[in-house]
Amino acid sequence: MRVGVLTGGGDCPGLNAVIRAVVRKGVSQYGYEFLGFRDGWRGPLENVTTELGIPQVRGILPRGGTILGSSRTNPFKVDGGVERIKENLASNSVDALVAIGGEDTLGVATKLAELGVQVVGVPKTIDNDLNATDFTFGFDTAVNIATEAIDRLHTTAESHHRILVVEVMGRHAGWIALHSGLAGGANVILIPEQPFDMDKVVGYVESRFQTQYSPIIVVSEGASPKEGTFALHNEELDAFGHVRLGGIGNLVAAELEKRTGKEARAVVLGHTQRGGTPTAFDRWLATRFGLHAIEAVHDGAWGQMVALRGTDIVRAPLGDATKELKLVQPELYSEAEVLFG
Amino acid sequence: MRVGVLTGGGDCPGLNAVIRAVVRKGVSQYGYEFLGFRDGWRGPLENVTTELGIPQVRGILPRGGTILGSSRTNPFKVDGGVERIKENLASNSVDALVAIGGEDTLGVATKLAELGVQVVGVPKTIDNDLNATDFTFGFDTAVNIATEAIDRLHTTAESHHRILVVEVMGRHAGWIALHSGLAGGANVILIPEQPFDMDKVVGYVESRFQTQYSPIIVVSEGASPKEGTFALHNEELDAFGHVRLGGIGNLVAAELEKRTGKEARAVVLGHTQRGGTPTAFDRWLATRFGLHAIEAVHDGAWGQMVALRGTDIVRAPLGDATKELKLVQPELYSEAEVLFG
Amino acid sequence: MRVGVLTGGGDCPGLNAVIRAVVRKGVSQYGYEFLGFRDGWRGPLENVTTELGIPQVRGILPRGGTILGSSRTNPFKVDGGVERIKENLASNSVDALVAIGGEDTLGVATKLAELGVQVVGVPKTIDNDLNATDFTFGFDTAVNIATEAIDRLHTTAESHHRILVVEVMGRHAGWIALHSGLAGGANVILIPEQPFDMDKVVGYVESRFQTQYSPIIVVSEGASPKEGTFALHNEELDAFGHVRLGGIGNLVAAELEKRTGKEARAVVLGHTQRGGTPTAFDRWLATRFGLHAIEAVHDGAWGQMVALRGTDIVRAPLGDATKELKLVQPELYSEAEVLFG
Amino acid sequence: MRVGVLTGGGDCPGLNAVIRAVVRKGVSQYGYEFLGFRDGWRGPLENVTTELGIPQVRGILPRGGTILGSSRTNPFKVDGGVERIKENLASNSVDALVAIGGEDTLGVATKLAELGVQVVGVPKTIDNDLNATDFTFGFDTAVNIATEAIDRLHTTAESHHRILVVEVMGRHAGWIALHSGLAGGANVILIPEQPFDMDKVVGYVESRFQTQYSPIIVVSEGASPKEGTFALHNEELDAFGHVRLGGIGNLVAAELEKRTGKEARAVVLGHTQRGGTPTAFDRWLATRFGLHAIEAVHDGAWGQMVALRGTDIVRAPLGDATKELKLVQPELYSEAEVLFG
Repeated sequence: MRVGVLTGGGDCPGLNAVIRAVVRKGVSQYGYEFLGFRDGWRGPLENVTTELGIPQVRGILPRGGTILGSSRTNPFKVDGGVERIKENLASNSVDALVAIGGEDTLGVATKLAELGVQVVGVPKTIDNDLNATDFTFGFDTAVNIATEAIDRLHTTAESHHRILVVEVMGRHAGWIALHSGLAGGANVILIPEQPFDMDKVVGYVESRFQTQYSPIIVVSEGASPKEGTFALHNEELDAFGHVRLGGIGNLVAAELEKRTGKEARAVVLGHTQRGGTPTAFDRWLATRFGLHAIEAVHDGAWGQMVALRGTDIVRAPLGDATKELKLVQPELYSEAEVLFG
Repeated sequence: MRVGVLTGGGDCPGLNAVIRAVVRKGVSQYGYEFLGFRDGWRGPLENVTTELGIPQVRGILPRGGTILGSSRTNPFKVDGGVERIKENLASNSVDALVAIGGEDTLGVATKLAELGVQVVGVPKTIDNDLNATDFTFGFDTAVNIATEAIDRLHTTAESHHRILVVEVMGRHAGWIALHSGLAGGANVILIPEQPFDMDKVVGYVESRFQTQYSPIIVVSEGASPKEGTFALHNEELDAFGHVRLGGIGNLVAAELEKRTGKEARAVVLGHTQRGGTPTAFDRWLATRFGLHAIEAVHDGAWGQMVALRGTDIVRAPLGDATKELKLVQPELYSEAEVLFG
Repeated sequence: MRVGVLTGGGDCPGLNAVIRAVVRKGVSQYGYEFLGFRDGWRGPLENVTTELGIPQVRGILPRGGTILGSSRTNPFKVDGGVERIKENLASNSVDALVAIGGEDTLGVATKLAELGVQVVGVPKTIDNDLNATDFTFGFDTAVNIATEAIDRLHTTAESHHRILVVEVMGRHAGWIALHSGLAGGANVILIPEQPFDMDKVVGYVESRFQTQYSPIIVVSEGASPKEGTFALHNEELDAFGHVRLGGIGNLVAAELEKRTGKEARAVVLGHTQRGGTPTAFDRWLATRFGLHAIEAVHDGAWGQMVALRGTDIVRAPLGDATKELKLVQPELYSEAEVLFG
Repeated sequence: MRVGVLTGGGDCPGLNAVIRAVVRKGVSQYGYEFLGFRDGWRGPLENVTTELGIPQVRGILPRGGTILGSSRTNPFKVDGGVERIKENLASNSVDALVAIGGEDTLGVATKLAELGVQVVGVPKTIDNDLNATDFTFGFDTAVNIATEAIDRLHTTAESHHRILVVEVMGRHAGWIALHSGLAGGANVILIPEQPFDMDKVVGYVESRFQTQYSPIIVVSEGASPKEGTFALHNEELDAFGHVRLGGIGNLVAAELEKRTGKEARAVVLGHTQRGGTPTAFDRWLATRFGLHAIEAVHDGAWGQMVALRGTDIVRAPLGDATKELKLVQPELYSEAEVLFG
């Protein structure tokens, strides 16, 4: 058996750990051979391959990024894309594919599986917004990075009676904001799922100043205010209605400064959240995903992906991952809200 | 309602996060008052109390240890212990107790609940060996500390063709060794549940040297060799048959040095694994445990404890935590074993 | 002898370590008493004091911020300010002052010393731009935080062929950018002392893409382009000619995106660089500064401050710290420049 | 010009940063070619070489260990060793050598320079015990790792009224113990330069317990008690009179437990202190050492090594590094002693 491996979409700490586990178990337990496809679906589409075996995966477990590269290429948007993929798999004698990626990458995998390609999936999203799995790897790393930043801001906020706004990743789902905000003891957490009331935020900030402590606001990059509570100028919204030029973090800081008369500053963690070495949790999860993915290949469980349920790795239909985003539900947000202010 | 809070057993990163969440939600949502009991069950037994309210829990979220202190006092081993506890609760007008602890602390809580004390539990063990919950807080922190140590050892092992043995916590269960060994890319993982064959360990070590890489062995403090494969001298075992004087890590290193002719060194992480600031995961879990514990108090769910199942916090009978230890099952160990050598 | 202590200016990891060392040595070696003044010079000006002794300094060594609070109050800008300070020192029976701060705080101390106040200084600036000392505490912490961020960005930059711009602190001096850029392997470092040529930056970025690696640009918040090489719109400059709204980092990213056609993203570390626990170096330096400051008090070395020269702590006239900023000299920048691109 | 590079002795975070800086500046500024010699002096002795150029040094800046490997081979202890080195340099057309190492490696370089080999040196020792330079790279990393461990132990010590002993590296010099002990707020620091009085240590420990805090003792692996104050059994000393089997840390813990009746535990950080990614300070220092070493090659400054003095990189005769160890002087130890107990 010869197995192709590819990684698609945004990078995420843990991708290399998946690749390593897939290859090491495949080689030592089943005697499989492997071929790497570069840059997500671009690899099998344009036949860009790279050697993949035990030597290539040595030492990559703790490394961020992906040794296979990544892209957002979608073969279904390319004329004859699917045929070319099938041809390239055949010409490389590749019998099966392990596709590691998020909504888009697994969406392609789902359709290819329906068209007869022997593919299994490994779910990946730093935002933790894929259904069918309790957690995705990379998320824990991002949350820890954001939490460490919040920890550092507490002492400086307090020494200067200052407002600090931390903008974290999360365009559609507020998981990183929710978890890091809870873990870091933020005073307010703003997420995309819950348009925020600027008056209420100002209230939290002001009540915080009545203690000796200073407010820290965590805001998802995709969070936005309720209409009418926050004067965003038109030119500050891009074509999709998202805040641009410095992002929502800077805007919230500017608005708070104006309304409270206190100095406010924004920190934008940006891509530091998705790079670097994965946490132990993410390496454990990614490694187990890899081990179980190759087991799924061995079982011929095409069209399935691996998933975490409790502490078990299970299989789920690839389509489940991409049906709908896993959002922060109102009751979970309310649970956290009791700690605001 | 006036609620007492205590922490018992070995300390664990996240205890303060639980206390903070219990108090903050109790005060702001239900208007409860709180009283801290010091040093586990010694507090209500000997009526040693401490003020506990919003000011006392400010800033403690990221701090290791417990502001309430801890001990291993068991009131059932003290004459009239239970009566004294009841009296002290009454004299302090304490209506309900939140008991945060491991097997022993929750064992006492279980029996007190049967005797009519209004108590809810929060499970705690750095070793992750409590049943009825997917994970306990503190465990993720310990695993990350051990993993960082393993990461550091890789480069030095390789530069000198040296064997490195890392001894981690886990007297009865190998969870810390298993997770940190997987996350750190250890070449062999030795756990208490699986007595090890020294010949096999030597084999893994020697095959590792045939690559350009050097072996790292992770061993639980409670791991022990199969009889006949490892010459432990009698005087090196303590009364319980456990290895003493430097621990099993040093002995494995000495034995490997003797058998392979390569330099071997041991690192004993000891109590560094249970101190210091908790990871984001542990703070999130501890905070949610605290929020749900006070909800259980509000619901009068006496004799229940909070537990993690998947991503949900649920309730379970206190007795479930203490029925039997959660050990690493053979199939889970085999899953990891494919990466050995 | 009764000694007052105050901390002024921006906060900086290590302030608490200085306070602790001053108090512990003063009490145990010389039997001094201490009094804390709150919020920099506001404390002695408005007679806002706080108890300061062994119990107050327990456990503060690893904590960021300052237990004494800080401000930018300047008593020389207040009518009768100096008299009020003298009166308040007298009414509190304070014989000597230890003033911990940067240019402004030590500038006040210099003038007060000339007016007969018994004061010794401890230099402090996260930017490392004070003359008369090799390093100031807090700087090493800031550099490490920036370096860790750059480390994380490398993997994500490479996986996506993306440009990443990291904006670090440094309004007038580029020390943080220079040290973290060197330590993190940045491809270009832009500092306030050397107005940058945007064409040259574009050149470095493009040559970097010809390798398989991706460019990371570190830019001081106070860096600015040479005239004519970079189209800053007027409205993007504030009254002081500094770039505003998202800062120079965002502007450089936007410009690079436009000119190279590659995606560019900015990370703004902001106040995370000045908060949180100090590195070992900063704690060692701050502790030694504290020990030597109280020695200076004992010797009656009024008008002097402590300073690091090599590995020795020496004394220097307070005025030396504030004479002129310590800037990155052209030859030192050239030394780093050989690693650009 | 063709330049050989080798790394000798124990590994140290920062070695790769030196190699990278040497090669990058040598290639881009002077057009030099490079050749790597493997495993210290074994490389030129046995003609074991490895390609070394820009591609080989990409991405190694943050990596611990050394891509060139290391050993303790001494060509002066091998018959005709020097001749073979000269022949191998000639046959590889190597004009000059950059030797990176400690006392032994630089000792060989000193003698070779006297015999006409064109060699410049870069000093390296994790223990910081080389004369002629203020600091060596790797030391700051080791101190930070030890300090983080001490930080973690504080909370657990306090929660259980327990004594914790941390054994750190330092066979002959106590620099790591002194710096990490100061930075971590240890209650006692024991170093090789000052044989310790066990009675005094017990005194510190007991006075510490009279506060609410618990004692942490930092001990260099090479520290030893004053005769008569500590019952070490003969068999616990190795041929050099050093403590063996678990080390001095375990023995001090055992003795303290016996004398104070309090539980005492030892943590042995071992090789975790010399592995893994270097701190920003060590990367900055190592990079500058590398840049200046190639400058010394360019200047033909044979028999010289680079050194740090204040913030300047200077040159010193190779012999200076190896004349005598840089030990902790009594007055510096006394400076720290005021914080004991």
